[in-house]
Amino acid sequence: KDKARLLVSCPDQPGIVAAVSEFLFKQGANILASNQYSTDRHKGTFFMRIEFEAPDLHQKEALFKTGFTQVAERFEMKWDIIFAYKMKRMAIFVSKELHCLRELLWEWQSGDLMADIPLIISNHEDAREIVEPLQIPFYCLPITKETTKKVEEEQLRLLAEHSIDVIVLARYMRILSPEFVARQKNKIINIHHSFLPAFVGAKPYERAFDRGVKLIGATSHYVTDDLDEGPIIEQDIMRVNHQDDVRKLKKIGASIERSVLARAVKWHLEDRIIVHGNKTIVF
Amino acid sequence: KDKARLLVSCPDQPGIVAAVSEFLFKQGANILASNQYSTDRHKGTFFMRIEFEAPDLHQKEALFKTGFTQVAERFEMKWDIIFAYKMKRMAIFVSKELHCLRELLWEWQSGDLMADIPLIISNHEDAREIVEPLQIPFYCLPITKETTKKVEEEQLRLLAEHSIDVIVLARYMRILSPEFVARQKNKIINIHHSFLPAFVGAKPYERAFDRGVKLIGATSHYVTDDLDEGPIIEQDIMRVNHQDDVRKLKKIGASIERSVLARAVKWHLEDRIIVHGNKTIVF
Amino acid sequence: KDKARLLVSCPDQPGIVAAVSEFLFKQGANILASNQYSTDRHKGTFFMRIEFEAPDLHQKEALFKTGFTQVAERFEMKWDIIFAYKMKRMAIFVSKELHCLRELLWEWQSGDLMADIPLIISNHEDAREIVEPLQIPFYCLPITKETTKKVEEEQLRLLAEHSIDVIVLARYMRILSPEFVARQKNKIINIHHSFLPAFVGAKPYERAFDRGVKLIGATSHYVTDDLDEGPIIEQDIMRVNHQDDVRKLKKIGASIERSVLARAVKWHLEDRIIVHGNKTIVF
Amino acid sequence: KDKARLLVSCPDQPGIVAAVSEFLFKQGANILASNQYSTDRHKGTFFMRIEFEAPDLHQKEALFKTGFTQVAERFEMKWDIIFAYKMKRMAIFVSKELHCLRELLWEWQSGDLMADIPLIISNHEDAREIVEPLQIPFYCLPITKETTKKVEEEQLRLLAEHSIDVIVLARYMRILSPEFVARQKNKIINIHHSFLPAFVGAKPYERAFDRGVKLIGATSHYVTDDLDEGPIIEQDIMRVNHQDDVRKLKKIGASIERSVLARAVKWHLEDRIIVHGNKTIVF
Repeated sequence: KDKARLLVSCPDQPGIVAAVSEFLFKQGANILASNQYSTDRHKGTFFMRIEFEAPDLHQKEALFKTGFTQVAERFEMKWDIIFAYKMKRMAIFVSKELHCLRELLWEWQSGDLMADIPLIISNHEDAREIVEPLQIPFYCLPITKETTKKVEEEQLRLLAEHSIDVIVLARYMRILSPEFVARQKNKIINIHHSFLPAFVGAKPYERAFDRGVKLIGATSHYVTDDLDEGPIIEQDIMRVNHQDDVRKLKKIGASIERSVLARAVKWHLEDRIIVHGNKTIVF
Repeated sequence: KDKARLLVSCPDQPGIVAAVSEFLFKQGANILASNQYSTDRHKGTFFMRIEFEAPDLHQKEALFKTGFTQVAERFEMKWDIIFAYKMKRMAIFVSKELHCLRELLWEWQSGDLMADIPLIISNHEDAREIVEPLQIPFYCLPITKETTKKVEEEQLRLLAEHSIDVIVLARYMRILSPEFVARQKNKIINIHHSFLPAFVGAKPYERAFDRGVKLIGATSHYVTDDLDEGPIIEQDIMRVNHQDDVRKLKKIGASIERSVLARAVKWHLEDRIIVHGNKTIVF
Repeated sequence: KDKARLLVSCPDQPGIVAAVSEFLFKQGANILASNQYSTDRHKGTFFMRIEFEAPDLHQKEALFKTGFTQVAERFEMKWDIIFAYKMKRMAIFVSKELHCLRELLWEWQSGDLMADIPLIISNHEDAREIVEPLQIPFYCLPITKETTKKVEEEQLRLLAEHSIDVIVLARYMRILSPEFVARQKNKIINIHHSFLPAFVGAKPYERAFDRGVKLIGATSHYVTDDLDEGPIIEQDIMRVNHQDDVRKLKKIGASIERSVLARAVKWHLEDRIIVHGNKTIVF
Repeated sequence: KDKARLLVSCPDQPGIVAAVSEFLFKQGANILASNQYSTDRHKGTFFMRIEFEAPDLHQKEALFKTGFTQVAERFEMKWDIIFAYKMKRMAIFVSKELHCLRELLWEWQSGDLMADIPLIISNHEDAREIVEPLQIPFYCLPITKETTKKVEEEQLRLLAEHSIDVIVLARYMRILSPEFVARQKNKIINIHHSFLPAFVGAKPYERAFDRGVKLIGATSHYVTDDLDEGPIIEQDIMRVNHQDDVRKLKKIGASIERSVLARAVKWHLEDRIIVHGNKTIVF
């Protein structure tokens, strides 16, 4: 396709939109969608996402990039142009609970997740039977405290070998090492089974039950070194009541988890998310 | 304040955003927010709303308007620049049910509805006691089939006398004549007590009860000659169940009505709505 | 399991709950859950659902039924006792769109739909590849205007042969004949792709788009002779906006349809629904 | 009115419903609504709420209470019969933010909060102008760290003088002393401006903004000694996004707070809430 997305962040000042839109116009590009946000009109940071198309765009990739460098330098921009014809390459990590994986694969089959999935990695065998019929390579890498380092090395090797752009933790129940996380900054998307910052850590449904909350939720976020503290991408909740025991909370929670994670992954694949400090701007 | 909103619609073609943003930049304006939408990339209609600020803007009103005319002509734009320092003048029509009126007045007192309210008109006396303590002139104009024409003339006279920009029907239970409506195109906002197009016409809660629906709703729309068929601005619903009788449905419905109408009015006052055929674009 | 559900409807009068609960107590049954509703305290109709368990219940089935006849006669009850150990036998009808079928099969695999599924019938081949891996017999019975009668006879034969209790139309895009419907009163559950009574009939998403609604929905209902007019079991909606074209509305709608239908089917299987005239009581 | 509500909790065992419903039937009472819940079928705690009516009920109050004692002793019940003709007496505490107070007064004027309001207490003057027009006595008792004890004594004196049954903290921004709380066990309803247990403590909106959450909420709970840790009655949330600054979060939050608190208060007044340990059962 001849579509692309331009992401920009820079110190706010007048003239940014004019300069960027003039550049695109001169390249013969048509703006399809445009979003902007500024943290503060005076001396804040300005963010913009523009979706555009241009005839024979994929042949002019280099041209666009070098051309935009001038605009970018003038406004001290951090920026990226992502060309839609290049599919992102997504790895999925999963453990024994498969509802999030199922949802992602379903959406992917329906053409709603525009990504290649070169591999799915698990520390258990459970997912194999739903992955392999779809012709996706499945790697079962069991892991123990002792083997963590070694297994992570193997995971990193596989990710590199398959040129992975984004890793989705679809209820992967192992904590990744700081080294692993550091090498994939803002590239690992996790689903946490509570409306963060409530119930940070383990066993959120058990603790939600004990606290007697009237709503339970799920949170999708980028993974950072601080467990459950990374930038939040999306959250949602459902109502529960005194009759719902822990088992029922998990059932209800599973349906929130799967839709929240699917939305977060879709937004990431569509380059709608800009991470700013510990927050996300979702255009 | 030195803020303004620019609304534009025109045939879609490349270069619109560049031309508009360059114009604003040259006038020393800073874009605060910007939204756009095109019905179809190829030969569709393009819509844009830009919120901007510029130093001493209210002194340059004429300058901006004449300046923009050139851009507008080039792209065959329908357009408007609305200066925020000029408050819109809003009339409210109400009958005996006061919940929507109360909500509007409450939001208005809290500073969330940026409008002047020079008068409130009713065909009943009920609203007087909540209107007059707020120093808003209240006109009770009782109306019967026979007096409709005469009363509408009096209403029109009052609207003209007070230079009214927008009329909100906050559960005003009389049908306005086509002549009245024609003179206020896209300026009359109504709240209908169902999720249109379900239960067009009278007694929607009674009919919702008879049909056994599991959710009831409310719809705010611009008034046109076709009863309940005008462009929809906002809708919302709440869940109900078999235990809810008509009286209960009305209670629940009232709380939907008041929030839906308040949102629609706020969006209108902030110039977020563009009417396109029988639909609205809400930026 | 030693659980059962008692459903009762009768003219309201004092003493019903006392008589029923005393009967259950004398049979050694423990009430697990109990719901009641009366259309009108004075001369209304009374409805009750009681879930109970008793030791060795499945051996005392006849005893319970004959014993309860006395209570039932005293209050002129319509009633049923459904024993949980007997799984309901469910047939699913589907056409080319598979999202509702997928959801039902997923819930069924997860143990959340307590039913046997002896067969799935379609007028197209599309569903075969997701049905057969689950070892469920799949019957493709193509249908044209001319063959309707003959195909329905074949369908009825299959339903009888497999002792089907409930038929779920999971986006089955053919209208069933009055004869077919009459033989399965309150046993056919359909999903309609709009928040009824809005957009009764064909192409609801196209019409929702044309009307410019701000929310779209889905409705699950029992099928009657009046198209889209049967008793509503469950409804839900999602917000949409001016940017969503018909294709997007269908995507969003599909996710509402699948969850609404799954809830309705689950409630039916758990005997939570009593049909009263053209409405449902959902306990 | 000749209505009453019976609340029961006791060790679960067969026969409870039969015994209670037989008692009511013998007294000539008609059951209008009935709810039950058991924490665990085997050796759990059983809870029940029955709403009933009986002719000339208010003259038979003592009769009902002494009569029920026998049933209660047999099953070791904690119980209460609340007669609807006796309105609960509610005090409201408020500080400077008035939106929750306004909502409560509005619902009260509309007849949706069945309670007497003999007094409203504040540590500021702000609420006086909306309270006094409704003929409700308003007490402004300013409070400082030094005067806390003395002011609480005055508050307790006023509560006793007016025979107050329930205290609603409608954004009352002072922490009550353990002594004050201990004397009003399960009688003080608070609204906390976050979806607890997220953002326990001060400045929840500021912290929600800093954390970058995608939804904000409010929680109504009974007040205990542990700040923000009392039994949760009701919670709700709304979606927010990166554009919403702290001021906007507070606006959105205010509308959640007022509806959540109003629901919690209504349920309390209708005796729908049973506190069990640190949780609520809401029938």
